[in-house]
Amino acid sequence: MKELIGACMIGQSGGPTSVINASALGCIEAAMQSPLITKVYGAAHGIKGVLNDKIYDLTLEDPEELALMRYTPASVLGTCRYKLADWTKDDTDYKRILEIFRAYDVRYFFYNGGNDSMDTCNKISNYMASQNYECRIMGIPKTIDNDLAMTDHCPGYGSAAKYVATTCMEVCRDAKVYDTGSITVIEVMGRNAGWLTASAALAGNGTFGPDLIYLPEVPFELDQFVADVTKVYESSGDALVVVSEGIKDKNGVLVSSYFSETSKDKDAFGHSQMGGLASSLANFAKAKLNAKVRGIEFSLLQRCAAHLASSTDVEEAYLAGWTAFEAAASGITDKMVAFQREAGKEYRCSTILVDLSSVANLEKAVPREWINEAGNGMLQPFIDYALPLIQGEVDRPMVDGLPRFAKLKRVLTRSE
Amino acid sequence: MKELIGACMIGQSGGPTSVINASALGCIEAAMQSPLITKVYGAAHGIKGVLNDKIYDLTLEDPEELALMRYTPASVLGTCRYKLADWTKDDTDYKRILEIFRAYDVRYFFYNGGNDSMDTCNKISNYMASQNYECRIMGIPKTIDNDLAMTDHCPGYGSAAKYVATTCMEVCRDAKVYDTGSITVIEVMGRNAGWLTASAALAGNGTFGPDLIYLPEVPFELDQFVADVTKVYESSGDALVVVSEGIKDKNGVLVSSYFSETSKDKDAFGHSQMGGLASSLANFAKAKLNAKVRGIEFSLLQRCAAHLASSTDVEEAYLAGWTAFEAAASGITDKMVAFQREAGKEYRCSTILVDLSSVANLEKAVPREWINEAGNGMLQPFIDYALPLIQGEVDRPMVDGLPRFAKLKRVLTRSE
Repeated sequence: MKELIGACMIGQSGGPTSVINASALGCIEAAMQSPLITKVYGAAHGIKGVLNDKIYDLTLEDPEELALMRYTPASVLGTCRYKLADWTKDDTDYKRILEIFRAYDVRYFFYNGGNDSMDTCNKISNYMASQNYECRIMGIPKTIDNDLAMTDHCPGYGSAAKYVATTCMEVCRDAKVYDTGSITVIEVMGRNAGWLTASAALAGNGTFGPDLIYLPEVPFELDQFVADVTKVYESSGDALVVVSEGIKDKNGVLVSSYFSETSKDKDAFGHSQMGGLASSLANFAKAKLNAKVRGIEFSLLQRCAAHLASSTDVEEAYLAGWTAFEAAASGITDKMVAFQREAGKEYRCSTILVDLSSVANLEKAVPREWINEAGNGMLQPFIDYALPLIQGEVDRPMVDGLPRFAKLKRVLTRSE
Repeated sequence: MKELIGACMIGQSGGPTSVINASALGCIEAAMQSPLITKVYGAAHGIKGVLNDKIYDLTLEDPEELALMRYTPASVLGTCRYKLADWTKDDTDYKRILEIFRAYDVRYFFYNGGNDSMDTCNKISNYMASQNYECRIMGIPKTIDNDLAMTDHCPGYGSAAKYVATTCMEVCRDAKVYDTGSITVIEVMGRNAGWLTASAALAGNGTFGPDLIYLPEVPFELDQFVADVTKVYESSGDALVVVSEGIKDKNGVLVSSYFSETSKDKDAFGHSQMGGLASSLANFAKAKLNAKVRGIEFSLLQRCAAHLASSTDVEEAYLAGWTAFEAAASGITDKMVAFQREAGKEYRCSTILVDLSSVANLEKAVPREWINEAGNGMLQPFIDYALPLIQGEVDRPMVDGLPRFAKLKRVLTRSE
């Protein structure tokens, strides 16, 4: 196979995670040391940066500052939620992308995101092939939701899960210190897949953890919820409940839509915008039980809390980026880096490459058999799956008692 | 002065902090090794445990497990919000407290709490003196609010401030990654004093920090708020705003009460119950600016996030407890341990003892001259004051990637 020499470009897309920049760094550092690469570019705000010709020249960055990306949450290149049309129907955006790729001589393109981003990546790959423009295109996975198909788990999940489990332990301690009884409902991100919500079950091995956990995978019934909470509250005087933002009833209606009109707003991908579920459910329980209640939304904190990142996750995120580059350099294209867990008690994972088309737009749910029969708690197979992913603390650089994040120059370059 | 031999009892009161147990541990470990002390008791849920004769025998605990209190957030003995009557008008509770003190031979009583708790402590001290019951009574300060009088700062504040500053940095990174513009409003605890809200100004030395900060010390005007946010949003395309839950207008009306009926609920101390301010202000700005907005409430997380504790705070908290015991053992009573900062550039603090009556029920506000003239940001003197308090990370014991909290047996003892 002939060597393909040219520029490398990376873009970040979708919601931030604590480790998305570790992945980008892996790819950038691999590219920087490759003799095939003439330039390393970053697209500002993902594919929108390509369309708008807003491209950073990353070779102008201080390598030491770039290295801090390993510890810096939330896409340093900026991100976007932009859905490309089907190019067989409307190729406007694609023509522009090709124009920019040609202008910068981009021969290696990496897209760092979730399942929507893998769809974007796959479409670009198909279009470039149709135009006989030689360009190796690879997906680097990231999502706190852990809902990507074809991979054991996804970079970003372990750190978010460590945040959720740790914070649940602390809230559990806080919420149960009075003798007056209380019901606390915590809302965790996850539209259709409950992986992150389920991670609350890791908290304190049962001692300092939630009493009830509800995932979108099991139809939610308000009456059963109240019955469950009542049972826990009456036996222990307190109840700590964790719910996914995306819990739905048996008709597929979002429970959050019972309480809020705004849940009908949709983003560019047709996802409903949600929020306020924890307080609504807490107040609903209050009306039934006359208890002191509190709703807590983990909000953005769960996806950007790099200070609680799992070192396992950070290292795997970096590896995903590095592997994506190495694979592309070896001639592979149209793939996503995935993780495959080895059999055996000890946790070991290796990277594999999977077709972008097999990942695009799919969502992997938590297996029903990992959730208890009542649909309000997790079983041991889930613990065995998730616990290795939150292992290890990150020794992050600190200045004046606070984290030191990467400060990139982000020098815009021009194609002309 | 004659040696006073007898039992020691400690109670915890008011809202939890990350380091309240470090203070209790300092006192307990000092008592355990003192030849004056016959028994070390913990009152379950503060003064309510005394009134209800729910007393733990702490000498039955494993010392290694007790030592984990240093890293365990939220009162391990349980807490309460219970206001004692004026004993000259109604001495019912006081007679009961004396009865229990006699039954357990309590000669050393320590109360670990905020200004309300120092009031409780002072009243008990006065009553015991009036009854000629010899008992040394000391207050051990704790509050994330940092509003205690007579002390440079208060254990609990440094850790909560480190949480607020760190999390603001992370949210700042997350909230600004899209190119579509957004306004994010974060709500921080603090009814009348803005110390904790102000700590957001420590975030990232301006690079990754909030654009606007509003404290209860400065009358809040909605129109000015919108003007401030508009200015920031129009110049940078984003705005990150931090507000105290307790911001009030020039008539002293809580801004949260503009938006919510529930803000009229009051607790046993007459404090209003608040919440939902961040989302309300964000939506208010949205209506004016047609921007994407998000409200984030740090909720319980800011006061129980022991994983982000400041080691300076943890060590001072322990010292406060130890010093309280040592002072009592030396014959002192009716005092609270306070901190006095030494002059000079390098941070050094020593403990002093102050009269409980000089602390009880007072609230120390942030000096107006530490807030900028516009009332929407902090000035350098505040940074110089607060930055030393968040220094140092805690090397806390971990099991399976999660914190290891103290699991006490909490064996109830009986006075008969």
